[in-house]
Amino acid sequence: MNEGNCIFCRIASGASPARKVYEDEDVFAFHDIHPQAPVHILIIPKKHLASLEETEEADQALLGKLLYVARNIARDFELHRNGYRLVLNTGRQGGQTVFHLHFHLLGGRYLYWPPG
Amino acid sequence: MNEGNCIFCRIASGASPARKVYEDEDVFAFHDIHPQAPVHILIIPKKHLASLEETEEADQALLGKLLYVARNIARDFELHRNGYRLVLNTGRQGGQTVFHLHFHLLGGRYLYWPPG
Repeated sequence: MNEGNCIFCRIASGASPARKVYEDEDVFAFHDIHPQAPVHILIIPKKHLASLEETEEADQALLGKLLYVARNIARDFELHRNGYRLVLNTGRQGGQTVFHLHFHLLGGRYLYWPPG
Repeated sequence: MNEGNCIFCRIASGASPARKVYEDEDVFAFHDIHPQAPVHILIIPKKHLASLEETEEADQALLGKLLYVARNIARDFELHRNGYRLVLNTGRQGGQTVFHLHFHLLGGRYLYWPPG
């Protein structure tokens, strides 16, 4: 899949609608349309990376920024008080359905074990 | 909890036993003692960080490295062929039980949805 037909590239560029939570020059975040918890937000890089498997060593800084933005969004939504879970699915068995790297931030309820 | 009584600090330093998978100057990885999938590995920073909530902006590079090491370990275990899931629990509702930041890498079976 290239950027042109990637739904998350379209969302990050504003070409497709989403309930935006956060945006900076590298990162975009929006509410999942099929929430699995009271708060369920997706955090994505604006750069098209199909999955963690597709990243290179030079993407480490961006990966770290995505996590730190997720941490800050958790604070914005007061999830840091009781806790939250971040999930990164890679490939079909991992449950990845959109092939543009995205972290799921879930909170507002107890998250059970195993994680799927 | 400080470093002295943190079980994951003890594992990373070699003071407590674990089935080690990977080690470098910043990162340590080992098999979870209660695996939830055929492959279930924990990836931790050697530096004591209680959780993602406790990280600071300067920790972004380390967070990115942890993810990239997880990606490389997934390749080592051939998980990249079919897929895998990474999970980061923060706080009690997130399911965090050891307060030293750790990523769960799960693979070798289909990971279901919701993720807990």
